[in-house]
Amino acid sequence: MSSLDLTLLPDGGMGWLDASGEASDIVLSSRIRLARNLAGMAFPARAREAERLRVLEQVREAVRIVPALSDGVVLRLDEVSPTDRLLLHERHLVSKELAGVDRQHPVRSGAALILSGTASVMVNEEDHLRLQSLRSGFSAQEAFAAMVAVDRGVGSRLPYAFHEEFGYLTACPTNVGTGMRASVLIHLPGLVLTKEIGKVLAGLQQMGLTYRGLYGEGSEVVGNFFQISNQTTLGRTEEELVDHLVRVVRHVIEREEEARRVLLRDAGYIIEDKLWRAYGTLRFARSLTFDEAMNYLSGLRLAVGLKLIGGLSVYTLNKLLIFSQLAHLAHAEGRELTQSEGNLVRARYVRQVLADEVGSHG
Amino acid sequence: MSSLDLTLLPDGGMGWLDASGEASDIVLSSRIRLARNLAGMAFPARAREAERLRVLEQVREAVRIVPALSDGVVLRLDEVSPTDRLLLHERHLVSKELAGVDRQHPVRSGAALILSGTASVMVNEEDHLRLQSLRSGFSAQEAFAAMVAVDRGVGSRLPYAFHEEFGYLTACPTNVGTGMRASVLIHLPGLVLTKEIGKVLAGLQQMGLTYRGLYGEGSEVVGNFFQISNQTTLGRTEEELVDHLVRVVRHVIEREEEARRVLLRDAGYIIEDKLWRAYGTLRFARSLTFDEAMNYLSGLRLAVGLKLIGGLSVYTLNKLLIFSQLAHLAHAEGRELTQSEGNLVRARYVRQVLADEVGSHG
Repeated sequence: MSSLDLTLLPDGGMGWLDASGEASDIVLSSRIRLARNLAGMAFPARAREAERLRVLEQVREAVRIVPALSDGVVLRLDEVSPTDRLLLHERHLVSKELAGVDRQHPVRSGAALILSGTASVMVNEEDHLRLQSLRSGFSAQEAFAAMVAVDRGVGSRLPYAFHEEFGYLTACPTNVGTGMRASVLIHLPGLVLTKEIGKVLAGLQQMGLTYRGLYGEGSEVVGNFFQISNQTTLGRTEEELVDHLVRVVRHVIEREEEARRVLLRDAGYIIEDKLWRAYGTLRFARSLTFDEAMNYLSGLRLAVGLKLIGGLSVYTLNKLLIFSQLAHLAHAEGRELTQSEGNLVRARYVRQVLADEVGSHG
Repeated sequence: MSSLDLTLLPDGGMGWLDASGEASDIVLSSRIRLARNLAGMAFPARAREAERLRVLEQVREAVRIVPALSDGVVLRLDEVSPTDRLLLHERHLVSKELAGVDRQHPVRSGAALILSGTASVMVNEEDHLRLQSLRSGFSAQEAFAAMVAVDRGVGSRLPYAFHEEFGYLTACPTNVGTGMRASVLIHLPGLVLTKEIGKVLAGLQQMGLTYRGLYGEGSEVVGNFFQISNQTTLGRTEEELVDHLVRVVRHVIEREEEARRVLLRDAGYIIEDKLWRAYGTLRFARSLTFDEAMNYLSGLRLAVGLKLIGGLSVYTLNKLLIFSQLAHLAHAEGRELTQSEGNLVRARYVRQVLADEVGSHG
């Protein structure tokens, strides 16, 4: 298995982190995902290899006429190395399941990613198709509009499994109906520091939304990064679900901004001190675990948002999150890294980026 | 009470920190102190004001013919402000008792310091006279030689309280005999990090030595700085006591150096990381308590000793210890400071010194 050439990916698969879009210092990205299956075929986990490969073939054929996907790159996950699969997962391009990151769920034959600059399809994940649009910033509506076009295009060539009463059929019953998950990746350090986050998260759940960590389902919240998404997919239209998410997230952004104002007003120098210490640690530490790096980078992101620290772009902050992950570090080094080697390389990488971007701060 | 003009002090009272002398990166300073009292006069705590002033007058007269003291400055502690008294104490020139730092023991009328570049006398401290020689680095023998000359000079003019059997009489029985305390201020982070310090300190006690914190009796150990001194003053000659201290401290220095080698060998990158983080915090923190500053400066001192961090002289490290104390910060600012104002000013001062001395480190 040869090493993945990331330059072949459209935008290096990093377009969703380019810091464009509304409120991109707080909302890193917005994602719409549609779960679709082909009528008359077993779900991937139950299908035989030959059937999964037939599904992949049909999807490849179908996307040729879909504008947003026709120039896409096709990556067979079962044909790249574990490190490269982890790398794609770290870049938020494929799910844990498709990448076969867990030993319990090894990569599935026929598992593939079709990736263009504006949309992607995971093939033979839990469902036959996971259509996705991932955008930088608070851009759920734009991502949804793109998804609708992709879904129509693919659906015009492939017979989706659809039930008059239930809607789109999916491998997991929680996705039945619209098959849609709309989500934003949002940074809420202000609400965490003012300890209001608990109330905000409880409020989300009452409004039919849920939250997860950086890597979606089952992942811990780290660095004050939350993925907020719709909980239900049934009984409402896709437009309603997206509009609802957007309204609620807009409110969360306002509360985060308010929390930051309160922090500066009531505890200005304590916050300044805390954030500058985070910066000092990132500038000089010789070893950083991933969780530590995320937490200090969260502080740095807040410091940039509060204009305490200048000279750092939101794009650089976004890149730091992605490139300080283990598979990215290993890819840059051109060799496998143990966790503790990764901690040393991570610290060196972060030091380098910060020294290059901001030089010496008083 | 006017503010103290520090430029009038010989060497600013900082000569003992100029980083000269043997092993000055580990042993900051060496001190010999002799307790002496005048025959036929009540000890200062029991004397009336007039008697204390008479003692002061006699001492001033006597030191005029003592070479090491004849050019000394006379500072009446009861005539300077509390902040300036604290400042002199922070500079290790006067004891807590003489400075009247504690509210329980206010400054005593007639309390004075006679200070020259090589020796000093505290007058009307616990004893009528506390002759002192404070030297940079591991220089206990030189300090002792200077003290002997001063003691002879003063003793030739003043009738010391002396008992054939017990030796010099002092206010506190623990000082009776030679009246001498020989001590070194030593930095032992290696032994603390390897957790050998407990054994070393227990060993000191078995050998008739004792240890205290930065500020002598009753002060906590902070920043891994220890004052090691002789416990007993009775039954041995002064030379024996000094030689014994020097021998034992030489052994402690060797153990400290060995501990540093072991740390680098067995936990090199953990130590590097820890020390660079301390440096990063000092470079960027916006608020530093005194204890925090001492602990991080201890890390920085070790990092310089291990040659991990360059561009910083031992003299700068010594100055940082002294000038980051509250009264020194207040003196530099020209105003009184509360503890929390002091924390902000301290952090700014430390940032400034480090930015000036080392610039930007990779």
